[in-house]
Amino acid sequence: MDRHLLISSDCHAGLRPAEYRAYLDPQYRPAFDTAHAQQIATTEELEKHFLVKDINHEWRKGHERALTGAWDHAERIKMLDEDGIAGEVIFPDGITEMNAPPFGAGIGLGPKGADRELQWAGARAHNRWLAEFCQMAPERHHGVAVVPATWDVDTAVREVRWAKQNGLGSIMIPVMWGDHPAYHDPCYDPLWAICQELEMVVHFHSGPADNSTYFGSWPPTLEKPTTRGAMGIYISEVAFWVSRPLTFLIWAGVFELFPKLRVAITEGTAAWVPSFLEMLDQRATTHAGSAKLGDFTSHLKMKPSEYFARNVRIGSMGHRHEIEKRYEIGIGVLMWGSDYPHPEGSWPETSDRLTTSFQGIPESDRDAILGGNAAAAYGFDTEKLAPLVARIGPEKSRFVD
Amino acid sequence: MDRHLLISSDCHAGLRPAEYRAYLDPQYRPAFDTAHAQQIATTEELEKHFLVKDINHEWRKGHERALTGAWDHAERIKMLDEDGIAGEVIFPDGITEMNAPPFGAGIGLGPKGADRELQWAGARAHNRWLAEFCQMAPERHHGVAVVPATWDVDTAVREVRWAKQNGLGSIMIPVMWGDHPAYHDPCYDPLWAICQELEMVVHFHSGPADNSTYFGSWPPTLEKPTTRGAMGIYISEVAFWVSRPLTFLIWAGVFELFPKLRVAITEGTAAWVPSFLEMLDQRATTHAGSAKLGDFTSHLKMKPSEYFARNVRIGSMGHRHEIEKRYEIGIGVLMWGSDYPHPEGSWPETSDRLTTSFQGIPESDRDAILGGNAAAAYGFDTEKLAPLVARIGPEKSRFVD
Repeated sequence: MDRHLLISSDCHAGLRPAEYRAYLDPQYRPAFDTAHAQQIATTEELEKHFLVKDINHEWRKGHERALTGAWDHAERIKMLDEDGIAGEVIFPDGITEMNAPPFGAGIGLGPKGADRELQWAGARAHNRWLAEFCQMAPERHHGVAVVPATWDVDTAVREVRWAKQNGLGSIMIPVMWGDHPAYHDPCYDPLWAICQELEMVVHFHSGPADNSTYFGSWPPTLEKPTTRGAMGIYISEVAFWVSRPLTFLIWAGVFELFPKLRVAITEGTAAWVPSFLEMLDQRATTHAGSAKLGDFTSHLKMKPSEYFARNVRIGSMGHRHEIEKRYEIGIGVLMWGSDYPHPEGSWPETSDRLTTSFQGIPESDRDAILGGNAAAAYGFDTEKLAPLVARIGPEKSRFVD
Repeated sequence: MDRHLLISSDCHAGLRPAEYRAYLDPQYRPAFDTAHAQQIATTEELEKHFLVKDINHEWRKGHERALTGAWDHAERIKMLDEDGIAGEVIFPDGITEMNAPPFGAGIGLGPKGADRELQWAGARAHNRWLAEFCQMAPERHHGVAVVPATWDVDTAVREVRWAKQNGLGSIMIPVMWGDHPAYHDPCYDPLWAICQELEMVVHFHSGPADNSTYFGSWPPTLEKPTTRGAMGIYISEVAFWVSRPLTFLIWAGVFELFPKLRVAITEGTAAWVPSFLEMLDQRATTHAGSAKLGDFTSHLKMKPSEYFARNVRIGSMGHRHEIEKRYEIGIGVLMWGSDYPHPEGSWPETSDRLTTSFQGIPESDRDAILGGNAAAAYGFDTEKLAPLVARIGPEKSRFVD
C-alpha cells in the first residue's frame, strides 16, 4: 500500500433542528416546538459570548456547501473523499449551534438542567436519524448512539441493544453525572456488561465542564456579565472533565470485571495521558504513606496504565506535540480525528495538517495512529475499504523527510 | 557552610480538642461541647474506613512522646533539632484525628456541611493558640492562620490583619468553595490585596476532595457501605482539587493585578506541575481553533508558566521522582517539607529520606529546595538561624556521590 488508510475517530453530524421533529415520537413534538424557539434564542445569546458569530461566519465563508455534509449524505461523501478519509466515527452536533439533537441530547448531554424524559426522546430521535444516515455507506460510517445513561441504566441497556440492531457501533454517555451516581457505582455494571457483549465502544466526548462555576451562570445572560477569566478556565479544565471517568472506572475495577470493555476519550487532547498514568500507577503502589488508608489496591490485578493500554483509546486531533508523545500515550492507543465540521479541527486543511503532524514519523506509527488503531477498535472492514484507500488515501511518500 | 539550612514547608500542629475550648470566644463553648462529643464519634467511624486505627497505632509505637510535639513546644523543638530542621511552616491538624481545630476549621476547611459562624470561631481559636505557640521561638516557627475566606471576604481581610499583627506569616484558605464564588471572582480581590500588602503567603493545603461523590456519603457511615474504588479515586484526584485554584487565579489575571502576591500549594505532590504548565501555556496561545471563543488571553501580559514561576511555590515531600523533575517544576519553586507528625511524611526518618531524594543532586539545587526557596518565600531570618544550622543542619557531605 502506498497510501494510508485514514480513519477519522472524531466527526460530527446532525440534522437541522426542525428536521428532527419527524424523528421524535409524536407525543414529544409539542414540547419540541416550544424548545426549538427557546434554543434559537439561547443560541443567539451564546453567540454574543461564546461561539463568536463573526468568527464562525468568516471561517465558513466559501465552505457553505461542503458544510451541508453535516446532514447531507452526498456532500458528506464528497467531503470525506476530498479529505482522504476512508472511514469515520460520527458524534452528534454537526455544526455546533445549528445541528444539536433536541432537548440537549448532544455533546453537552447530561442531567444538569435537563428533563429526563425529554432528553431520552431527543437521544432516540437522533439515533434513529443517524442509523439511517450510516446505512447509506455502512462500511465508511461508524455511528455513535447518544445514551443518557445517568438517568437510568435499564433504559440505557435497551438503547444499546437497539443501537446495535440498527447498525450503530458505539455509544456516547454523559461526561458529567450531576447528582446521579458517578461511574464507579455498581449500578452501571449492566451497561458495561452489554457494551462488552455487543462490542460497543463507550465514549466520553469533550465539551461539558463546570460552566456555571466558570461563567457565573450558564447559559450566560446579558443581564449578568461573565466572571473574568471564565473562558480560559473552561478550556483549561475541559480535558480534566472528559478524562475524569477513567479514574472512576479504573479504581472501581470495571476493566477487571469487563476485560474486553472498550472506552474512548474523544477530543479531550492527549498530552495529559503520560502524567495521568504515571500518577495512577504511583497511587496504586501501596507505600508507607497510604497504608493508613487501608487496602484499596488488591482488587486490581494489573497496573492502571496496563488497563489503560488494553481498554482505553484516545481520539485526538493529532497535533504535533501529541504525536511526539505517542509512545508515552500508547502507540496502540492514539487515534487521529478531523473533527469535521468544527472550526477547531483539521478540515478543510486536513492534508496540510497531516503533513505538519506526521512528517518524518515512522510508517508503522503513522499506520497505527492514522487508521490502524481506529480500524481495530471500531471493527472497520479494511479489506472492503482497500480499493477506496487506493484511490483517496494520503500518499505515504508525503511523510518521508 | 558545610550544613544545609533545612526548612520544612509543611508541618502540622494543633491542640488536643478539649484544650481549644479556652481559646474560643465564650459564646461558642456550649456549641463546642456538643460538637466535641460528635467529633469523637465521627473519628471512631472514620477509623473503620479511612484512617485505619491499627496502622496508625503501629506506626506511632515508640514515638508517643515525640508526637506530643504536635502541641507541646519543648517536645517540638527537640523533634525539629533531631530532624535537622531549622525552620518550619505550621499548618493545623497536628495528629490528624486528634488535633483538628473546632468546627471543621482545619485542613478540611470549607463551606460544605459547615456552619459559617462556628467555623470562623474555630479558626480564630486555632489562630490565637498558634500565635502563642509560634512566639515561643519566632525565628523557627512560621504560623499559617486558618481563614475560611469563602464565607465572607471582609471578615477574612480583618483576620489577615489580626494574624499579621500577632506574628503569623501566612494564611490557609479553603481548597473547595462549595456553592460560594470560585477564586476567579473579583469579590476576593480585597483578600489578594491585603495579602500582597502584608506579604502573607496564601496557602492551599491538600486534603479536601469530592468525597461525597467518591464514598457515596461523607463522612462514611456503617449503614451505607463505601462505593467500590472510592479510596483509590480519592488519592488520585486530591492533587487536582488542591491545585485547581491556580487555574482560576491565573486566568482571572490575579497575578497581573497583584504581581507580588504569593500562593503556595502544599502537600499536593509536584509531578503534575510540568504538564499543567504546558497545558496552560498552550491554552493561552490563541490559535484558529479557539478564535471562535473570542478574546480570552489579552489581559494576561505574561505566560501562565511565567506567573507560576514568579508567584507560586510548591511545598512537597520531595520524593526522588519530584526532585528529578526540579527544572520542569521550577528550581525556585519547589520547597521540601517533612509533614510532621503525619505518617505519610518523612518524620521520624527524615535523614534517610533526604539521602534517598537528594543523593548526587548539585549543591546549589539542594540549597534551594531544602531551605533557600522557603526562606525567601516566608522571610525566615537566615542570619539569625545560622548558628543553629551549624549545629543541627544535615551535613552537605552526605549528599555527594
